[in-house]
Amino acid sequence: MTAIKKIGVYTSGGDAPGMNAAIRAVVRTGIYMGKEMVGIMQGYQGMMEKNFIDMGARSVCNIIQKGGTVLKTARCMEFRTPEGRKLAYENLKEKGIDALVAIGGDGTFTGAELLSKEYNIPVIGIPGTIDNDLSGTDYTIGYDTANNTVIEAIDKIRDTAASHDRLFFVEVMGRDSGCIALQAGIAGGAEAVLLPEKDTGIDDLIGKLEQGVDCNKTSSIVIIAEGDKNGGAYNVAKHVKEKLGDSFDIKVTILGHLQRGGSPTSFDRVLASRMGYAAVNALLVGETRKMTGLKGNEIVLTNLEIAINHSEFKLEEDLLEMSHVLTI
Amino acid sequence: MTAIKKIGVYTSGGDAPGMNAAIRAVVRTGIYMGKEMVGIMQGYQGMMEKNFIDMGARSVCNIIQKGGTVLKTARCMEFRTPEGRKLAYENLKEKGIDALVAIGGDGTFTGAELLSKEYNIPVIGIPGTIDNDLSGTDYTIGYDTANNTVIEAIDKIRDTAASHDRLFFVEVMGRDSGCIALQAGIAGGAEAVLLPEKDTGIDDLIGKLEQGVDCNKTSSIVIIAEGDKNGGAYNVAKHVKEKLGDSFDIKVTILGHLQRGGSPTSFDRVLASRMGYAAVNALLVGETRKMTGLKGNEIVLTNLEIAINHSEFKLEEDLLEMSHVLTI
Amino acid sequence: MTAIKKIGVYTSGGDAPGMNAAIRAVVRTGIYMGKEMVGIMQGYQGMMEKNFIDMGARSVCNIIQKGGTVLKTARCMEFRTPEGRKLAYENLKEKGIDALVAIGGDGTFTGAELLSKEYNIPVIGIPGTIDNDLSGTDYTIGYDTANNTVIEAIDKIRDTAASHDRLFFVEVMGRDSGCIALQAGIAGGAEAVLLPEKDTGIDDLIGKLEQGVDCNKTSSIVIIAEGDKNGGAYNVAKHVKEKLGDSFDIKVTILGHLQRGGSPTSFDRVLASRMGYAAVNALLVGETRKMTGLKGNEIVLTNLEIAINHSEFKLEEDLLEMSHVLTI
Amino acid sequence: MTAIKKIGVYTSGGDAPGMNAAIRAVVRTGIYMGKEMVGIMQGYQGMMEKNFIDMGARSVCNIIQKGGTVLKTARCMEFRTPEGRKLAYENLKEKGIDALVAIGGDGTFTGAELLSKEYNIPVIGIPGTIDNDLSGTDYTIGYDTANNTVIEAIDKIRDTAASHDRLFFVEVMGRDSGCIALQAGIAGGAEAVLLPEKDTGIDDLIGKLEQGVDCNKTSSIVIIAEGDKNGGAYNVAKHVKEKLGDSFDIKVTILGHLQRGGSPTSFDRVLASRMGYAAVNALLVGETRKMTGLKGNEIVLTNLEIAINHSEFKLEEDLLEMSHVLTI
Repeated sequence: MTAIKKIGVYTSGGDAPGMNAAIRAVVRTGIYMGKEMVGIMQGYQGMMEKNFIDMGARSVCNIIQKGGTVLKTARCMEFRTPEGRKLAYENLKEKGIDALVAIGGDGTFTGAELLSKEYNIPVIGIPGTIDNDLSGTDYTIGYDTANNTVIEAIDKIRDTAASHDRLFFVEVMGRDSGCIALQAGIAGGAEAVLLPEKDTGIDDLIGKLEQGVDCNKTSSIVIIAEGDKNGGAYNVAKHVKEKLGDSFDIKVTILGHLQRGGSPTSFDRVLASRMGYAAVNALLVGETRKMTGLKGNEIVLTNLEIAINHSEFKLEEDLLEMSHVLTI
Repeated sequence: MTAIKKIGVYTSGGDAPGMNAAIRAVVRTGIYMGKEMVGIMQGYQGMMEKNFIDMGARSVCNIIQKGGTVLKTARCMEFRTPEGRKLAYENLKEKGIDALVAIGGDGTFTGAELLSKEYNIPVIGIPGTIDNDLSGTDYTIGYDTANNTVIEAIDKIRDTAASHDRLFFVEVMGRDSGCIALQAGIAGGAEAVLLPEKDTGIDDLIGKLEQGVDCNKTSSIVIIAEGDKNGGAYNVAKHVKEKLGDSFDIKVTILGHLQRGGSPTSFDRVLASRMGYAAVNALLVGETRKMTGLKGNEIVLTNLEIAINHSEFKLEEDLLEMSHVLTI
Repeated sequence: MTAIKKIGVYTSGGDAPGMNAAIRAVVRTGIYMGKEMVGIMQGYQGMMEKNFIDMGARSVCNIIQKGGTVLKTARCMEFRTPEGRKLAYENLKEKGIDALVAIGGDGTFTGAELLSKEYNIPVIGIPGTIDNDLSGTDYTIGYDTANNTVIEAIDKIRDTAASHDRLFFVEVMGRDSGCIALQAGIAGGAEAVLLPEKDTGIDDLIGKLEQGVDCNKTSSIVIIAEGDKNGGAYNVAKHVKEKLGDSFDIKVTILGHLQRGGSPTSFDRVLASRMGYAAVNALLVGETRKMTGLKGNEIVLTNLEIAINHSEFKLEEDLLEMSHVLTI
Repeated sequence: MTAIKKIGVYTSGGDAPGMNAAIRAVVRTGIYMGKEMVGIMQGYQGMMEKNFIDMGARSVCNIIQKGGTVLKTARCMEFRTPEGRKLAYENLKEKGIDALVAIGGDGTFTGAELLSKEYNIPVIGIPGTIDNDLSGTDYTIGYDTANNTVIEAIDKIRDTAASHDRLFFVEVMGRDSGCIALQAGIAGGAEAVLLPEKDTGIDDLIGKLEQGVDCNKTSSIVIIAEGDKNGGAYNVAKHVKEKLGDSFDIKVTILGHLQRGGSPTSFDRVLASRMGYAAVNALLVGETRKMTGLKGNEIVLTNLEIAINHSEFKLEEDLLEMSHVLTI
């Protein structure tokens, strides 16, 4: 193994709050360790287009608190082809980049794994995604911020729900993962939570709502992950109305992409800082094709191919059970 | 005129942040002036059902900062009939309520005006609605809070828009009034604003967006009031996509009812406090069928029938013009 | 009068949230009107040091939501001398700047007035200060944001005050002006407010607090402007403790400079945008030595020398009276 | 062991955001399991004064999002005496309370441990304190919220620090524990952090600050825990000024008790919900004198006497090391 001299860092896939804190930590740790640091703009797209910027310690000033990613992100179909990755590698080589830190989710890591294997370039992944759907870490960067964004919205909706004695259906992000929905359901005190991992029929939901009425609840909030089998909040509302008529006054809110933005929470900033710091240190001791993760209070490394294997990931069933008890 | 002894206060129509601050001010001012105070639950519905609660100074402790309304609100079809209003009056009389403070929007005031005329009961209105669509006041209670809720959402969306170089369509409240949309457009630095009062064609919008591209803008936010002639954000997005194909990556967010909730801003709390204080004092000097308003820094009174006359209300055209200049 | 070709803009004195929104509006309006725009860094200091940056429409992208000022601010003793102002003028002239927009408070405007008179350079002032202590405008830029920062802090303190049945003294900004303190007192539901404009003795305060106890209030918040005659929150707390012994458990919080920061509210962003737009348009129609102001819903101009004349400014006594009534 | 029929729950010591979410979870879980639930007001003080309230499932509606504690908290010297605890026990017995859930920090648990041992009443503790200074859990309830409150304040201060090129000293809570200060230092990007656990001399601090100047940093933030050996932010500022003269313009902010308040974060609400649920379930399977804790993603139990043994608790030295690297 030849010594690493120049490290490239990029963000790819959906942006997540805390990515900037991770970039800052990667850049400053690298510089502290005597390495040259290069930002690769728009992820794999930037590798195609030689969109590289040299980064000094001051280049990451005052970004720790910012949402989004200063390195931007994009989808890049070309990189999925062998020719695309060849071009990427040649451009990296030309720039002198001999190691990579990849910040993103499973798509990002799939690409990183391939490039690393095909061209023997060391790479460490940092889990930056609001979905919290990777194995090998208790938390991904951005998940905590997204959870807080969602409950701030739910708290506002509860004000108006309680004033009007109304029923609200709130759709949150999560195409394959119900993590945000479940967390929002518990933290928001929602009467029911519909998740992709769990097939909740409309009749079950109606039963739950009618039970709430029997307990003298006058308003209710139902959280629906976008990937729920019934087809999202508008469809669930339609089905419930068909069965119940006008006995409930239902309103729908789709939170959408605002869940991706916002200044990162303290938790996400510290998590991102620790992971960025650990990623560079891992590269420098010869690690590759691993993802940084948080387990308890410890930063650990997991093989990228395990991290992106969703079969390893499980929703916490006991939390769902608990959420039923707490909304009696 | 016999002296007022017992004042009833109620909220009606859509809830608005700051209504609780107004209730608190009404109750405490009344008690300070030696009157008995009664809260009428769920607006006109509560008058039908004798849903009255006696309120002391401590009953409104710790509510100034709360969204929604502790007196709740509801729609009441029965009150729109002469029989309904007769019942309402008889119930008020039985309870000894000889004056009213009505907090709400034009529907609330239409009812209050009728009841007051038909049964000669003095009533003062307080404008509590996020829509800011009443004549006789520069600001309605809740409008400022809603504006801040909207720009917090837009700031979050801008993080992700800028990271992805994307186009976002954000739908905000406003069926007949573009106030929130225009304010959000200016404060959020949006590239375009579509309003109910103004017929903006899809081609105009596309022109504006393409102009942005020419100026090297890589991401854009368009604010669309729900009452826009093109039919809301989903429809506008559909039309734009039909014309432009995939050259823009468009995402839609519908903010919905979260715009009604949240802890009121400092502005709304002070406005509500002043109006509540002024409303009781107005009743006690013999005023009736008037609405409290803020003009500059002064609290003024306007006849209810003028306040609810929308022809008096005009969108500020010059602000729309300015918003074009500021987004070059 | 020769036509204006190049406009310089600067911020000076204490920073205020919304200054960036004003800078953005000034720059874009100027460019829209065909003028060249120059940012002068650190106010008068930058004039001394030729710290000028050319500004295009894109240079003010994505700053409308940011606290502080991208043009920075500093104190500059040298500018207060005739020699200093001569140097400033020569540097402006060399750069080709033939008109100025000055964003700040009374110190800023005093300097601008002098420079404009001595060297016949047109200048328009924009009131950017959290203190709201200028004549000629209902609101200064930053005041609304500071008010919201303060009540968010008070809301948090009230949580703990209510849990512990404690008495809290909260010191807010305002050396000469009680505007923030009074607004905070009303919006925060404080039991008492101590202001620079009003001499409230310790005995009066104690009377008020004991009255609260008689009304079964178990916790209380007192707002103290830093310029209060008794010498700030720590001193007031000391005096109260001397007189009352341990019958109250008093805690002190000094909010300090966090009141200057934060993302501007919707109100401040729109206000700043309107004022920036108006300032450039005023220059271009030949106005000078005026300050933009908001009166009701209208943007107006006031002579700078009147704006900074504090004798014109009066605290609203009736609001203080109202605040007593609302905390019974 | 006889079966538990009636469970008492109380909060004691300093309040922490999330206590209400824990109370809600305890009450609803107990009721779901068929037990009677009693709220004990003001902790041990309420046991002395028989200040008990019966709690149903609806009694904890709409409190999950509220700061502070609806059961209130107080200091109680009497309970520290054997006589006091005897009275407490007799009152509990009279009320039929045969098990306890104690929410608080080490003082709370010390009392609970004693009462439980002396009178053989089962008790489970829930760690509710912003200080995060208990062994047996990665996080205490309220710590995450306090961290976010602190960084929101620091973000605001950074706006003004950057605009003025100033040095800010921010004092945060932590008499014996530097957890909040260290987290704030990392998440806020502070240039230095002074902690109770670590003796940082004034000269070291000055060295660090001068090093920042050499790196072209123009503004700096220093976080100081209230329990720092140098004596708090005002004292540190004084010492630095004595040594440096006026070369730095230093401002001090004391965040104080606002760090205890505020609506709990999503993290704290879920943590509190899980712990409340676990505490009741632990009691019902015969556990006693244990504290619920979070280790990784698992809820675990630790003996109370271990939880409150501070020698078990260690500051994470490696995070302090990392914070130096990340602020180069």
